[in-house]
Amino acid sequence: MTYDLVIRGTLVLPDGPSENSWLAVSAGKITAIGIGNAPDARASFDAGSDYVIPGVVDGQTHACSYGGLPGIRSTTRSAIAGGVTTIVDMPYDNPAPLNTVERLDEKVAAIREHAHCHVALYGTVMPGQGMEDIDPLIVGGVVAFKISTFESSPTRFPRITSEQMLDIFTALSDTVIPLGVHNEDQEIVRARIAAAKAEGKNGIEAHSASRPPAAELAATAHFLELGAAAGAHAHIVHLTTARGFQLVDNYLADGFRSTGELCVHYLWFDPERDGPELGAKMKVNPPIRPGQIDALWGEITAGRVAFVSSDHSSWPIDNKFTPSIFDAGAGVPGLETLLPAFYTAAEVQGLDAPTVTVEQLCERPARFFGLWPEKGAIRLGADADLTVLARKPQTWDSSKAHDELRWSPFDGRQFSVTVERTYLAGELAYDGTAVLNQPGQGQYVRRGHSHWFE
Amino acid sequence: MTYDLVIRGTLVLPDGPSENSWLAVSAGKITAIGIGNAPDARASFDAGSDYVIPGVVDGQTHACSYGGLPGIRSTTRSAIAGGVTTIVDMPYDNPAPLNTVERLDEKVAAIREHAHCHVALYGTVMPGQGMEDIDPLIVGGVVAFKISTFESSPTRFPRITSEQMLDIFTALSDTVIPLGVHNEDQEIVRARIAAAKAEGKNGIEAHSASRPPAAELAATAHFLELGAAAGAHAHIVHLTTARGFQLVDNYLADGFRSTGELCVHYLWFDPERDGPELGAKMKVNPPIRPGQIDALWGEITAGRVAFVSSDHSSWPIDNKFTPSIFDAGAGVPGLETLLPAFYTAAEVQGLDAPTVTVEQLCERPARFFGLWPEKGAIRLGADADLTVLARKPQTWDSSKAHDELRWSPFDGRQFSVTVERTYLAGELAYDGTAVLNQPGQGQYVRRGHSHWFE
Amino acid sequence: MTYDLVIRGTLVLPDGPSENSWLAVSAGKITAIGIGNAPDARASFDAGSDYVIPGVVDGQTHACSYGGLPGIRSTTRSAIAGGVTTIVDMPYDNPAPLNTVERLDEKVAAIREHAHCHVALYGTVMPGQGMEDIDPLIVGGVVAFKISTFESSPTRFPRITSEQMLDIFTALSDTVIPLGVHNEDQEIVRARIAAAKAEGKNGIEAHSASRPPAAELAATAHFLELGAAAGAHAHIVHLTTARGFQLVDNYLADGFRSTGELCVHYLWFDPERDGPELGAKMKVNPPIRPGQIDALWGEITAGRVAFVSSDHSSWPIDNKFTPSIFDAGAGVPGLETLLPAFYTAAEVQGLDAPTVTVEQLCERPARFFGLWPEKGAIRLGADADLTVLARKPQTWDSSKAHDELRWSPFDGRQFSVTVERTYLAGELAYDGTAVLNQPGQGQYVRRGHSHWFE
Amino acid sequence: MTYDLVIRGTLVLPDGPSENSWLAVSAGKITAIGIGNAPDARASFDAGSDYVIPGVVDGQTHACSYGGLPGIRSTTRSAIAGGVTTIVDMPYDNPAPLNTVERLDEKVAAIREHAHCHVALYGTVMPGQGMEDIDPLIVGGVVAFKISTFESSPTRFPRITSEQMLDIFTALSDTVIPLGVHNEDQEIVRARIAAAKAEGKNGIEAHSASRPPAAELAATAHFLELGAAAGAHAHIVHLTTARGFQLVDNYLADGFRSTGELCVHYLWFDPERDGPELGAKMKVNPPIRPGQIDALWGEITAGRVAFVSSDHSSWPIDNKFTPSIFDAGAGVPGLETLLPAFYTAAEVQGLDAPTVTVEQLCERPARFFGLWPEKGAIRLGADADLTVLARKPQTWDSSKAHDELRWSPFDGRQFSVTVERTYLAGELAYDGTAVLNQPGQGQYVRRGHSHWFE
Repeated sequence: MTYDLVIRGTLVLPDGPSENSWLAVSAGKITAIGIGNAPDARASFDAGSDYVIPGVVDGQTHACSYGGLPGIRSTTRSAIAGGVTTIVDMPYDNPAPLNTVERLDEKVAAIREHAHCHVALYGTVMPGQGMEDIDPLIVGGVVAFKISTFESSPTRFPRITSEQMLDIFTALSDTVIPLGVHNEDQEIVRARIAAAKAEGKNGIEAHSASRPPAAELAATAHFLELGAAAGAHAHIVHLTTARGFQLVDNYLADGFRSTGELCVHYLWFDPERDGPELGAKMKVNPPIRPGQIDALWGEITAGRVAFVSSDHSSWPIDNKFTPSIFDAGAGVPGLETLLPAFYTAAEVQGLDAPTVTVEQLCERPARFFGLWPEKGAIRLGADADLTVLARKPQTWDSSKAHDELRWSPFDGRQFSVTVERTYLAGELAYDGTAVLNQPGQGQYVRRGHSHWFE
Repeated sequence: MTYDLVIRGTLVLPDGPSENSWLAVSAGKITAIGIGNAPDARASFDAGSDYVIPGVVDGQTHACSYGGLPGIRSTTRSAIAGGVTTIVDMPYDNPAPLNTVERLDEKVAAIREHAHCHVALYGTVMPGQGMEDIDPLIVGGVVAFKISTFESSPTRFPRITSEQMLDIFTALSDTVIPLGVHNEDQEIVRARIAAAKAEGKNGIEAHSASRPPAAELAATAHFLELGAAAGAHAHIVHLTTARGFQLVDNYLADGFRSTGELCVHYLWFDPERDGPELGAKMKVNPPIRPGQIDALWGEITAGRVAFVSSDHSSWPIDNKFTPSIFDAGAGVPGLETLLPAFYTAAEVQGLDAPTVTVEQLCERPARFFGLWPEKGAIRLGADADLTVLARKPQTWDSSKAHDELRWSPFDGRQFSVTVERTYLAGELAYDGTAVLNQPGQGQYVRRGHSHWFE
Repeated sequence: MTYDLVIRGTLVLPDGPSENSWLAVSAGKITAIGIGNAPDARASFDAGSDYVIPGVVDGQTHACSYGGLPGIRSTTRSAIAGGVTTIVDMPYDNPAPLNTVERLDEKVAAIREHAHCHVALYGTVMPGQGMEDIDPLIVGGVVAFKISTFESSPTRFPRITSEQMLDIFTALSDTVIPLGVHNEDQEIVRARIAAAKAEGKNGIEAHSASRPPAAELAATAHFLELGAAAGAHAHIVHLTTARGFQLVDNYLADGFRSTGELCVHYLWFDPERDGPELGAKMKVNPPIRPGQIDALWGEITAGRVAFVSSDHSSWPIDNKFTPSIFDAGAGVPGLETLLPAFYTAAEVQGLDAPTVTVEQLCERPARFFGLWPEKGAIRLGADADLTVLARKPQTWDSSKAHDELRWSPFDGRQFSVTVERTYLAGELAYDGTAVLNQPGQGQYVRRGHSHWFE
Repeated sequence: MTYDLVIRGTLVLPDGPSENSWLAVSAGKITAIGIGNAPDARASFDAGSDYVIPGVVDGQTHACSYGGLPGIRSTTRSAIAGGVTTIVDMPYDNPAPLNTVERLDEKVAAIREHAHCHVALYGTVMPGQGMEDIDPLIVGGVVAFKISTFESSPTRFPRITSEQMLDIFTALSDTVIPLGVHNEDQEIVRARIAAAKAEGKNGIEAHSASRPPAAELAATAHFLELGAAAGAHAHIVHLTTARGFQLVDNYLADGFRSTGELCVHYLWFDPERDGPELGAKMKVNPPIRPGQIDALWGEITAGRVAFVSSDHSSWPIDNKFTPSIFDAGAGVPGLETLLPAFYTAAEVQGLDAPTVTVEQLCERPARFFGLWPEKGAIRLGADADLTVLARKPQTWDSSKAHDELRWSPFDGRQFSVTVERTYLAGELAYDGTAVLNQPGQGQYVRRGHSHWFE
């Protein structure tokens, strides 16, 4: 028997790093893991002391919010270059969101045409739409649903009423499918933005106050209670303060299914320190808050964060160069920085960086979205989606990124590690310089068997 | 020294009943309390083994929602006959609510003209109104503010937006003044009522489902979180399920100022048992839920209920005789039944009825609204607002009530006690048959020094 | 009607001080309480703005451990001069403890002959004694039982085995009677003392280490678990560290009846600060620990201390003047310093001193030992055992004390208050200078109806 | 590269069973794990769908309590036949316990001569012995220390005083070494046995009451508190009731290092059901209690049981055939039944039996005693100590066991699985019928790096 591929290095296994080890791949699956001498294979790579980790599963990507379904191509190319082998794509596509089986079919077709990495999909429900499309979408393999309490766009990213939220929760209550939410109280945010504009404010320093923690937390509490009333899994896709995770934890303690997610920029940036330099380049919603970084890492070590994602958005930089912060697009590119940025910050916090990175970026999102054990772990039988992470410091330069966007809030930031190689289903997809695989080699990934509240 | 008045009987003191006791009154205050032989006095009453309790403080009355400010007259007359010596009146007066000092002055003038019992006042803020009237109203003596998350009337009882709620909480955050809320999510309730109507439902059995617990609880969670964010005291004026009190308790445990209140009808009626008989006569909002009575008593004994009130509304019965439950007015008369109904139900639950009655109907509301120790307790120096409660069973008959309304959901119910006498400031105001005092003898009561989170 | 006695002043009532008030006494009971003008009486005293409090109930006194039953005379005389109107006397009398009805009868007879103040009694069980005397002693009125895990004297104060402890707990499990314990592990203490002696140590600084917290806490845990196993009320008569109260609290949280007591010297002295001055004069068992004062006050404010007592022992000073600390008697006189010392220290801690003093020295011990509501509160029908506490600073001087002992660890300490008068059953027993009442005027007090876990 | 050994089957990996899998061994270590086709090897075994698990680590064995050090031979032979590849042997050897380096050296020599399986060692301290031998024993590799609060034998298994316990805890406080305890209060047990004898009781039904839960729990609480005081790791080697685990958990919650262990017989037998059949054959100390089986499984699923062991004792059956239960030896043979009995009972409880079995019998004891990751898991680099567990039902028959004892409380019990093969360091040691390896092939195992409170 000869394996298709053998990779040697420090494997980051579910219970920690194993040095001088190897894994072998057959037919796109990990079929053996060993220590010491490696067996023969048709192809091999020796990573030396570098880390070999499961490909990252980014739980929150917006591939198609700007360029529509073809946006999958550049987004997934960037993913591969960032060591991300599966993205969980949000439903708010341009011009219309994924809310029917027809739209699902179109998006799956686009994945088959464009995707460099694997793609799992969120679905949504539009205002006025009944619940009859939910079950077919679940049958079609969506991993979760998402709605918003704030209208970012009436056609693409609308606000869902309390009544419809309750209906969706009720429809999902007998399933393991989470309902995620973009959690901002629309009345507060609109009033505060109007007030800020009236006062002539227009810089990033006015952004957090215009969408205050109270707006985020009240929407969160309201959503969690509706989920509790219906008995469904309520998931907050981004929480920017420790109080948010305390809220989620209260619901858990009361016996309800609730979870909260973090994005890597909340763990890196502080508007007071970085706002003057970055301006709209760090505008995301809900906003990054001053003085929260250490508290949010505390939530991670306390086990209260479901997983960490990129919330990657494919906005061109023009979208950011607006006279007023309130006209700038919200969101940042992030697929190529997610892994090195998270690892580096974990190291700064004094954590066991390889272990916590694999936990938060690979295993936990895979379990959450029903993709484990095929994704998210170096274990027997898992898909051979793999990333080689070199202990090679780098300064981030978005002009060398693979997303065609050419900007990033991380520009100039030091990372302690570098993505050296990415394998998809056992084939080399990125060699540290170029994305080598072809559009369409990534696959549509349906929800499998794992779930969060087992 | 001769006292103005001496009353003998079983005094229900703060630490329990004291038999064969007496209290003495001078200049409208309790100036002595004794056991055994009583001193001389200009007037005296011997209640024998009946209870002498502090006059009830009803924390939630709607005196003026139907007949406007003159409604104070019949409402407070009914209060006196019910052993209630102080009402805390809600701001939603007809035709316009109490939201300015000018309106406060008008209402205080109406109290001076009409009130048989003492009256403390809630204020409110109207949509679009700024925060500049809040401080003057506090200076003017209002004991709390109330708003609603549901529009019962655009001019009298409007919905307040999240943004304005947050502003009010912020304005109150440095004070001990609670912000109360009528807690129902408007979107859910409106949609559910429309759906029920579309299905041709029109009876009381459709009422609770049309305003489901989820609507009440989501509004509650949202409100509590805004209060927490601002650091203010958030008060839920009625919770109909144990989950509601659990929510309030979570906020308390997290270090925030939160409280929840019960009304006596939630402790007495069940729509499944009583709906067929009572129909719209038991319609209140949020609705009385099936199967909650024992659980809510559990919350009382666990100490998680701030206090119990009547939520008395002065609707004529015509308001209830509508073809559809959805057109019927919400609310019930309750000032004359509050005390005997609560006492009787406490006894049925096996509790120490006189002690828990004084606690929930007298001492706790008095402390809550800043009226203690002048009100709410038989103690030295307190106002001589007193009620004699006879251990004389009665069957309730609203035709003999003093509120001019001539209907009650309690008609035909057995009470184990009867209000025998009511004294206001040491003067006999009710003798078991007739209200003896004059309109205007009740006083406007300003917020004093006690507060809930001492 | 004319009262026997009226006292005016600032009455410290169960819910706090009431200025310009009075109480009236008839036939030895408090029969009226008032504010403002006082009624006529055969005798009266005006305390002005000084405090009038319920007579102190000292929950832990050793009246007869040195001089035998006649020791009651000087001990209770000292009590009266200290504002203590009831002592709960320990059973370890010289030469033999109170463990039978015969011994109870003798002690009650001695009380009738000697007592200046009221006396309630602890009983005990001797090694080898069966359980058959327990019920008769309860019938005879003992308020609690006490045993020791350490042998202070084989005949007077012996160690009780685990087996016998379990038997006693079992015998008490269906009652409300607490079993108290002197809680020190004998093996550890004996070994440590032997080791200290072998090392030539002999000063107070070696005392705490020779009976380390571990010895105290292990005996405590062992005792609490036996009580839990039997379902009886386990009471630790002195805990010297916050950990001890945490232990007690764990048992309470697990649903068992457990309590812990403090003595005032643990709240005043620190061996590191006071040891060089006081030496054996501050030797008590378990020892006063370094650095615990603030933590123990924290336990009081957290409500985890059942009550505070004196642990008064009538040792002559010769008993302390020994070459080695290990030969010195343990225990201190304390009945005359308990009240002013506790009040002063509470004030230093920034607490509401009159309220917390009445709570910890009067009401709580009275409730604990079944003496409430006759003792422990100024309330209608209570016994007129009263103390006038003047806001007059004093420097303690044991040479003026009334206990014939002429020494105290408090000598030279500043107290912010002074015991001005003590009344027993409505009669003046101490006038600030001399004890006026006669031996035998104090009564034997049997356990009544109150109990701790109601 | 050719492996020494390949085993195919359903591998029970740390995160669950993996079917159709294999592991490869080189030089006694697991060097590769795979799924599907297996590589070549000098030896191979195909277990089909049977389980391949890590060799069991029995955390509590008494190999030498009867036959002295040579007892290692038959005990470890039995272990191998039971799928146990490492025993943690207790120090109470006949005629003298392991309490010095000299004794350690003798026992290690005996292991080298006699052991069929690996052996880790507990040490102890004898009455009167100083602490000077503790550090050398730790250097010598003992994995834990054990003492008893009850004297089973003055020379072999003595009671240790509180004082000495505290000294041992103090000596261990800076280490990760646990101090285990046989937890029974000697005074209670001796008194109760004397009483039972006096009443003429002599059957197994009197056993539990003669050593009541109170005796066990009071000794447990006392021991835990001493450990807490010293800051050391306190381990209870057997707890027979859920209350015991609650106690341990309270100490954990208070921040102290505490753990509790179960033995498999507490999870299988009930004296009321099994006593009449088994009599002294089920006598162990502390006794098996009536009605505890389900509650104890509840502790396992709640994660409050450190691990499950056999408490194997090598008593000949004569030791049990005594006229009185009080004269019978305590303890049962258990190495050959531990694995199938635990697995079977877990299955009956509806648990995921292979996973929970590996967790409780392999991984957790290995982590506890510092033997992980070399022992306790099928993972890269671990020692190739492996057991093949066939899904083949059997009825236990001790006459076919390998321990020379020829009796067992499990005789006639149905097990759902059978130990099919045992490998030690990659070599076949048991083939389902005969123990194949030689005395001395088992090794002395020193404490390594893992510890419980990491």
